[in-house]
Amino acid sequence: MPELRKDPIIGRWIIIATERGKRPSDFIIDQSKAKGGFCPLCPGNENTTPPEVLAYSDNQQRLKNQPGWSLRVVPNKYPALVIEGDLNKQGEGLYDRMNGIGAHEVLIETPDHAETFTYLPPERMVQVFWAYRDRLVDLGKDERFRYVMIFKNFGAAAGASLEHSHSQLVALPILPRMITSELEGSLSYYRYKERCVFCDIIHQELEQDIRVVTKNDKFLAIVPFAPRSPFEMWILPRKHSSSYCNSDNETFRALTEIFSECLRRLDKCLPDVPYNFVLHAAPLRSPALEHYHWHFEITPKLTMIAGFEWGSGFYINPVAPEEAARFLREAEID
Amino acid sequence: MPELRKDPIIGRWIIIATERGKRPSDFIIDQSKAKGGFCPLCPGNENTTPPEVLAYSDNQQRLKNQPGWSLRVVPNKYPALVIEGDLNKQGEGLYDRMNGIGAHEVLIETPDHAETFTYLPPERMVQVFWAYRDRLVDLGKDERFRYVMIFKNFGAAAGASLEHSHSQLVALPILPRMITSELEGSLSYYRYKERCVFCDIIHQELEQDIRVVTKNDKFLAIVPFAPRSPFEMWILPRKHSSSYCNSDNETFRALTEIFSECLRRLDKCLPDVPYNFVLHAAPLRSPALEHYHWHFEITPKLTMIAGFEWGSGFYINPVAPEEAARFLREAEID
Repeated sequence: MPELRKDPIIGRWIIIATERGKRPSDFIIDQSKAKGGFCPLCPGNENTTPPEVLAYSDNQQRLKNQPGWSLRVVPNKYPALVIEGDLNKQGEGLYDRMNGIGAHEVLIETPDHAETFTYLPPERMVQVFWAYRDRLVDLGKDERFRYVMIFKNFGAAAGASLEHSHSQLVALPILPRMITSELEGSLSYYRYKERCVFCDIIHQELEQDIRVVTKNDKFLAIVPFAPRSPFEMWILPRKHSSSYCNSDNETFRALTEIFSECLRRLDKCLPDVPYNFVLHAAPLRSPALEHYHWHFEITPKLTMIAGFEWGSGFYINPVAPEEAARFLREAEID
Repeated sequence: MPELRKDPIIGRWIIIATERGKRPSDFIIDQSKAKGGFCPLCPGNENTTPPEVLAYSDNQQRLKNQPGWSLRVVPNKYPALVIEGDLNKQGEGLYDRMNGIGAHEVLIETPDHAETFTYLPPERMVQVFWAYRDRLVDLGKDERFRYVMIFKNFGAAAGASLEHSHSQLVALPILPRMITSELEGSLSYYRYKERCVFCDIIHQELEQDIRVVTKNDKFLAIVPFAPRSPFEMWILPRKHSSSYCNSDNETFRALTEIFSECLRRLDKCLPDVPYNFVLHAAPLRSPALEHYHWHFEITPKLTMIAGFEWGSGFYINPVAPEEAARFLREAEID
C-alpha cells in the first residue's frame, strides 16, 4: 500500500509509492523507454489497460473497452495511489502519515499515436478539457479526496514514460503544497486589497502589454513576472472564477484556441522541447472563492536548468520574461 | 544587471540573469560540456579566473593567484548576481523587484582535477567546511546580504558545468523560500511545543533507529521521514545550534567523517549518481534561534524522477526511506 507522509518542518506531503524487493540501481529509470515498441494506449490494445472509467465516442453502439473511442480515461496500471481502502490517518511520534488512498488515471487524448497535444485538432482538444471537467466532477463525489492534480508530461525529460499523447489525473486526500501556498498567498492579498491577485495581474498585464503572449475574448496567456523557468507560460480566464468545473463549451473552445496557439508558439521557438503543464484550481467541493482564480501553468523543461534549483527551491532564470514573451509573440505559426 | 523578482502570489523570489541577444535555442545548454578539455579551476590556470577572494596554502610565501594552494575561492566568471551597486528596490504596479546585487563564488575544493568530493582526503574536506565558514563570516559583513546559499552540484545532470570538484556560494539580498518555509514551520512548532522540531526529529530517529544511515558523537545522518527524492539524506548536528559559523575544528572533523561516509555509502549503492547538497542555516547576522537547527540536505538526482515534480512541487518517491536507509547502511565501504 502506498503511503502519504508529511514533512514535519514545512508541512509538505509526499507520496511513498514503493516497489519492494528492488535493488538501488533499479531506481534509475531508463529514459529511452518513452520511445517505440508496443503501445498500450493505442486502439486495439484496450485489453492491456485496466477497464476504462470514461470514454468519448461518436459511435453510440461502441462497447466498453473496444476501439472506436476518440478519448479514453483508464486507471494507471502502475498507480502512485490506490482507490480501495481507508485513509487510516496516524501519527508516528512527531510524524504524520496516512494510507496512500487516491485515484491515478491516464487520459488518452487521441486514438492516433502520432498526434501530439500541441497539434491536436481543435475538436479533440476541446474533448480533453471536457474530460478534465467530467473526471473532476466524478472524483469530487468521493469525500475522501480533497484535490485532483491534472497534469501533462510531454517528452521523456519532462517525465513522460509513454509516447502516445496523454494527461494524468491524481486524486489526493490532501492538498498539495503548490495549491496551499497559492490559496494562502492569494487570501492574504485579498484581505489587504479586497481584490483577487490574479485579476489584478490580468489587469496589469493587459495594460503593460510586455509579457502577453496572446489573448482572446475569454483568456489571457502571459509569461509570468517571476517565472522559475525560461518560457514558462500561464493561461488565465479573464473572468474571475475559482472553479474549472463551471466552464461551458464556449469557454473550452476559447481555451483550446489559446492553449493550442501557446504550444505552437513554444514549439516554433524551441522545437519539441519537453514540458509539463498543470491545472491549478480550487479544492474539490470548495465554494466559489473570491481570492482564487483557476489557471494553467506550462513549464518547459530546458536541459540542465533545473539541476540545482530542484534541490534547493531556488531559481535562476536566464531569460527575461519580457524577452521570452517577445520570442513567443514573434514566432511565425500557421 | 541581473534582477531579483518576487512572485506576487506565493512570495517566491527568483533571479533573472539574462544573456541578451541570444536566440531561444541558445538556452538549451549542452550537457556534454561538463566533461574534458581545458580546466580553468586547475593549478597553473589561476589567471583564467577572476582574482581569488580566499585561498588556503601550506606555503606561507605563496603569491596570490599562483599555484601552491590547497583550496581556492574565486568569483564566478559568469555570475548570477553582481557585487557592485545598490539594491534599488522598487515596485512595478503590484510586482516587486530589485537589482540583482549579490556575490556568486566558486569554491575549488582541491587542486587535483581527478579528486571527487566523495573521496576527498579528510584534511581537504575539513578545509572545505572551514572555507564555507570563512566566506559566511566575510560575506555577512555586507549589510546588503541576508543569506548565503552554499551548495554543490555533482554531475552534469545535477547542474555541474565543470568537472573539477567545486562548491558554489551565492550571497543574496533576500531570504530564499526554502529557508523562509523552514524558519516559519519550525517557529510554529516551537510556539506549540517549546522545543526545536529538528531536535525532536534527532531524538525520535535515534530511538526508532530505522532511518539512521550513520552517526558519530556530534552528528546524525538520516534518510528523512518524508523525502522528495530516493536516497535523500540529511546530516544534522546532534547539539542544538542555528548557526553553522559557531562550529569549531572538532565539529568540522566530525562533520567530515560523517559526510564522507554518507557519500561513500551513496556511491556504493548508486555509483557516480549525480547529486546536490545544500547547507541550511540561519540567516546572516541572525541571533541564536531556539527553533532553528542548521543541517545539510543531500539530494541524489535520479534520472527522470524529477520530471513532473519540478513543474508541480508535488513529489512521488518510489523508495521507502526505511528501505533507502537500510541499503545505505548495508553498503560495504572501505
